[in-house]
Amino acid sequence: MVVDAGIVNINSYGGIGLANLVDAHPKMRLAAVAGHSSAGKTLRALFPAWGGADLPVLDELPPLDLVFSALPHVAAAAVLAPLARAGARVVDLSADFRLRDAATYARWYGHEHGAPDLLPRAVYGLTETARAEVAAATLVAVPGCYPTATGLGLAPLLAAGLLDRASTIIVDAKSGLSGAGRTLKTESLFGEADESVSAYGLGGHRHLPEIEQTVAALSPGGAAPPVTFVPHLVPMARGILATIYARPAEKVSAAGLRALYRDYYRRGPCVRVSETPPATKWTLRTNLCVVHPIVDERTGGVIVVSCIDNLVKGAAGQAVQDANLMLGLPEETGLPLRADWP
Amino acid sequence: MVVDAGIVNINSYGGIGLANLVDAHPKMRLAAVAGHSSAGKTLRALFPAWGGADLPVLDELPPLDLVFSALPHVAAAAVLAPLARAGARVVDLSADFRLRDAATYARWYGHEHGAPDLLPRAVYGLTETARAEVAAATLVAVPGCYPTATGLGLAPLLAAGLLDRASTIIVDAKSGLSGAGRTLKTESLFGEADESVSAYGLGGHRHLPEIEQTVAALSPGGAAPPVTFVPHLVPMARGILATIYARPAEKVSAAGLRALYRDYYRRGPCVRVSETPPATKWTLRTNLCVVHPIVDERTGGVIVVSCIDNLVKGAAGQAVQDANLMLGLPEETGLPLRADWP
Amino acid sequence: MVVDAGIVNINSYGGIGLANLVDAHPKMRLAAVAGHSSAGKTLRALFPAWGGADLPVLDELPPLDLVFSALPHVAAAAVLAPLARAGARVVDLSADFRLRDAATYARWYGHEHGAPDLLPRAVYGLTETARAEVAAATLVAVPGCYPTATGLGLAPLLAAGLLDRASTIIVDAKSGLSGAGRTLKTESLFGEADESVSAYGLGGHRHLPEIEQTVAALSPGGAAPPVTFVPHLVPMARGILATIYARPAEKVSAAGLRALYRDYYRRGPCVRVSETPPATKWTLRTNLCVVHPIVDERTGGVIVVSCIDNLVKGAAGQAVQDANLMLGLPEETGLPLRADWP
Amino acid sequence: MVVDAGIVNINSYGGIGLANLVDAHPKMRLAAVAGHSSAGKTLRALFPAWGGADLPVLDELPPLDLVFSALPHVAAAAVLAPLARAGARVVDLSADFRLRDAATYARWYGHEHGAPDLLPRAVYGLTETARAEVAAATLVAVPGCYPTATGLGLAPLLAAGLLDRASTIIVDAKSGLSGAGRTLKTESLFGEADESVSAYGLGGHRHLPEIEQTVAALSPGGAAPPVTFVPHLVPMARGILATIYARPAEKVSAAGLRALYRDYYRRGPCVRVSETPPATKWTLRTNLCVVHPIVDERTGGVIVVSCIDNLVKGAAGQAVQDANLMLGLPEETGLPLRADWP
Repeated sequence: MVVDAGIVNINSYGGIGLANLVDAHPKMRLAAVAGHSSAGKTLRALFPAWGGADLPVLDELPPLDLVFSALPHVAAAAVLAPLARAGARVVDLSADFRLRDAATYARWYGHEHGAPDLLPRAVYGLTETARAEVAAATLVAVPGCYPTATGLGLAPLLAAGLLDRASTIIVDAKSGLSGAGRTLKTESLFGEADESVSAYGLGGHRHLPEIEQTVAALSPGGAAPPVTFVPHLVPMARGILATIYARPAEKVSAAGLRALYRDYYRRGPCVRVSETPPATKWTLRTNLCVVHPIVDERTGGVIVVSCIDNLVKGAAGQAVQDANLMLGLPEETGLPLRADWP
Repeated sequence: MVVDAGIVNINSYGGIGLANLVDAHPKMRLAAVAGHSSAGKTLRALFPAWGGADLPVLDELPPLDLVFSALPHVAAAAVLAPLARAGARVVDLSADFRLRDAATYARWYGHEHGAPDLLPRAVYGLTETARAEVAAATLVAVPGCYPTATGLGLAPLLAAGLLDRASTIIVDAKSGLSGAGRTLKTESLFGEADESVSAYGLGGHRHLPEIEQTVAALSPGGAAPPVTFVPHLVPMARGILATIYARPAEKVSAAGLRALYRDYYRRGPCVRVSETPPATKWTLRTNLCVVHPIVDERTGGVIVVSCIDNLVKGAAGQAVQDANLMLGLPEETGLPLRADWP
Repeated sequence: MVVDAGIVNINSYGGIGLANLVDAHPKMRLAAVAGHSSAGKTLRALFPAWGGADLPVLDELPPLDLVFSALPHVAAAAVLAPLARAGARVVDLSADFRLRDAATYARWYGHEHGAPDLLPRAVYGLTETARAEVAAATLVAVPGCYPTATGLGLAPLLAAGLLDRASTIIVDAKSGLSGAGRTLKTESLFGEADESVSAYGLGGHRHLPEIEQTVAALSPGGAAPPVTFVPHLVPMARGILATIYARPAEKVSAAGLRALYRDYYRRGPCVRVSETPPATKWTLRTNLCVVHPIVDERTGGVIVVSCIDNLVKGAAGQAVQDANLMLGLPEETGLPLRADWP
Repeated sequence: MVVDAGIVNINSYGGIGLANLVDAHPKMRLAAVAGHSSAGKTLRALFPAWGGADLPVLDELPPLDLVFSALPHVAAAAVLAPLARAGARVVDLSADFRLRDAATYARWYGHEHGAPDLLPRAVYGLTETARAEVAAATLVAVPGCYPTATGLGLAPLLAAGLLDRASTIIVDAKSGLSGAGRTLKTESLFGEADESVSAYGLGGHRHLPEIEQTVAALSPGGAAPPVTFVPHLVPMARGILATIYARPAEKVSAAGLRALYRDYYRRGPCVRVSETPPATKWTLRTNLCVVHPIVDERTGGVIVVSCIDNLVKGAAGQAVQDANLMLGLPEETGLPLRADWP
């Protein structure tokens, strides 16, 4: 059986990423695409590289079984709430249904939440940590790119309750420019971003409360260490590498740490535990997350390097992985898992 | 039926590209990989990003039905000749079986040809121009990356006999750095190549005689214009864009030109005729060639822009496309044809 | 004596480039900067990397001896005409005073010329070809980046009258992204432009009439061959490499060609004739143009590779070089001529 | 008075960087360059972009007042020791004279130290922290690129004794590819490094003991916190951005922190304290270090972002800055301090 799926806000990197995955998926059909400001154009007019059928961009989607949304926050809740209430399966790339707490949302996003009644129904779709909940969900909030890399990098440590709750977890993340989206900004111009690395969001990035919520949710009893999160821009189109520094409550061995990670990720093909430090290119254009946990023998700290493609496992790919579970399919159905080289 | 395939000289961009395509192919099995200097290691030791089974690298291949070779010229003829004579299907990425004339080969490659007896059997696998010959072949020479972009850019014009034979065809080609291979050279270091464009091979690049042979082979009666070919390095990993300037014998219209191209490429999904100027990124990590032919109304000249991914349609992808025909499969079987964005 | 200089439209790559050169210049003082939409901010607010004194951005310049303009076309004529008429020395980066013919201007720029009375006074400042005129001028139009690379690449050949007037000169130019300016465009986003090469302006780029005018002006009697010009975008911030293909009326020797170029450029330190093919990086962040003329022995054609930094010799640097001559200074005063590596 | 200076191991990024700075320096003359394996060639044969006089590369330097060395460790001590003993002023880019302790050197570099008698004479030339010692020195060890960015990022905090000695300082550093030098390595090929970020040296990078020594030397009484240091490669040619996470012993205010840094760096033009997060491009091709210290209000930690160009302030530029002090010149003499844009 093939499910008819639609995409809202097609003129975005999330939108086109979803279109490519859905159109290539053996159990989904790209039934319709919508985009308010692009309505009346065609998909190929927006993305000349588009290789599928040249669909018209609609103003809004017709009723469909499965809706993916690449709308930005605020807009997403407004558009998706009626669909979710009407019974459609909704998978949302925005932040609108990620935070459990409407007040936290309002503080970080500067808007009252548009559909707080739906928050209890929404499942946070960090797939490897929530397979059963995702499979039973009808409304899934796809994690942000930074929280995905961070959450998968920390999940085994947190679940095992190994971290010292008094020591701050430091997440130093490096992202390619597509993380800033297709929106026009001076900082995203090639000339400005090329040959340069910069830190940003030092006063508090919106992914921080999401990371904190994830860290708490993965910790037994919700008792989690505080987090410092500093994102950086690096001159590449795609990819996130998060280097995570944490302090265990008691000494852990390198072998024990690796075994912990291998065991946690033994199921499912989308997370690979590597014995050598990975590069984001190992995950480029795939739905893979590669994690590399080590012990810093000199200080006793734990360091985890975690890599993803921000537009696949960090966005459209994880959305499809979640949708697969919602449809009862193997989670990797239709997802690229093979990085070519170079 | 699934065919057992092997790859020689795995430790190269051609080799790993073939491994990824063969391993993902529905009708091929990656049975063995070989590499003289890497024998004893494993595939993942050479390419940590390798996502398939971690095969040992052999010193040489066992007997197999289908052999792909990524050996450099001279070495290729030496290793492949016995296999080809013994009846294996051989698909070779090197230059050894591309030139029909052993003397031309010796002049450009500085070596006597290692197996001139096989040259009459070898088929030049520029797929869209030679489907029947490739389907009947047991030894296929995969065209070089520049000749592929150039040959597909010019084929419709040449086949129609439209060019002025007295006017030089100018091929100005721009290639990413992977075209220089995985060999260590100062010019290929990131620091040297980044933020820079340069011309090279101005005294005569080895792909020139291959381009000339292709241009002649595609011209009725072999009567073809002379060619000037200047390759350039641009700071990207993959991709070739060839801008081709030619002079028609008689005035051609823009519409007529486009119709000519559409008609020539109406069959087969790997060449797309675009009405807008393409970017190499439209073909990135796919087996597509995108061509854009126009008339320069002010001078009456014809300009064709032709894009490929040099490591896919320009190497491993076209090798698999040819092997598909040799095996009686649809030519696009197992090949990526969808560029995601960005 | 130090001259007070001002810059109009500071919030542009031309503007900041001028500011850096003027501020470092031993005989100029950066007296004031203006920018309509940025008025009220400071220079460092616009460009955090700015290393000089943090000047306020004015709405318009006070009266000054020397005015550099980085305004776009149309706006430039409107703002500069009164200043020029009032006797200021004006050096303009826009196209407004480049074309001698107001009708040609109107056709390519889609606007009537704003100050046609000034066209006879304006000198086209391709420095090495017009030193005396520039030294005597009070209004200089700095050539575009593509016309600079092309004009300097062709000047010796044209001046010697060596080209076949019936054969089209082909200019295939490759530019970094800063050529598109600091204006926000989807195509200039890092994610879109990275890892990609594309041709553009195939229907006729605005630099074409300027190139044609330059080619004619440099040809004895104005009798010049037609020109085909195709610009390309390559993924780097700065740099232009123009590969120029031309046909001599009679056979020329490689040695003769080189001697011709050396002789033409023997004076002045900003053009270097190279015996090996140059890379744009040889000119990065300098006011150098490196040219490499060769004979294609197989076809008898001439090929010239010409490199510049589009924002220095192709814009702000040549502006200062021209201003130096206007002030009676050595042309290279205050200009960077040394490329570091890599 | 102009000092005759020579450079050993010219065929390296350190060597050519020194050549460019010395050749442009108003008080130095580039008297000779040497390079064992390149002897007999000329400087321009090694670096075609070289813009100065085309010096012959000697096998070894003649006697000179001032010698800069870009030799790698081990070789540096062997070549420089006799020169230093003979009374020449020696400025060394290698690690050979950086570590005060010969045993630590032997452990990290795998060789006995070649001239332990000279270690007491050697001054560690992190200029802003050691002006008087450098001015009095005849043998200066130029700090490594990572230790420079880290040391300048931490110096004010350490000197004020503000850090909690029990909490680990975390240094997460991002470097461009030129940091790996001009040596041929697969990881440094454009195709491999492009579009990718990776961590390396997780088991202990050789710059770690140097960072620890620097941190201790800058701390009152040498009592310093432990350090975790993780370097990363990012796809750009030049630049280092170090993000440093530290814990103060007592609460510090944002304003107090900024004042501390401004006061420490009030003298000398090569360090800029920025109120906004810097990008490495602000320092590109200059001898600047830009530091941005902030307080993470949520956790009470201190974060310092520190940027340099690894080949200027991180190598050749700091070498010249130190040599300036040794010669009694203003430290910035002849050094680029102005980043253009973009």
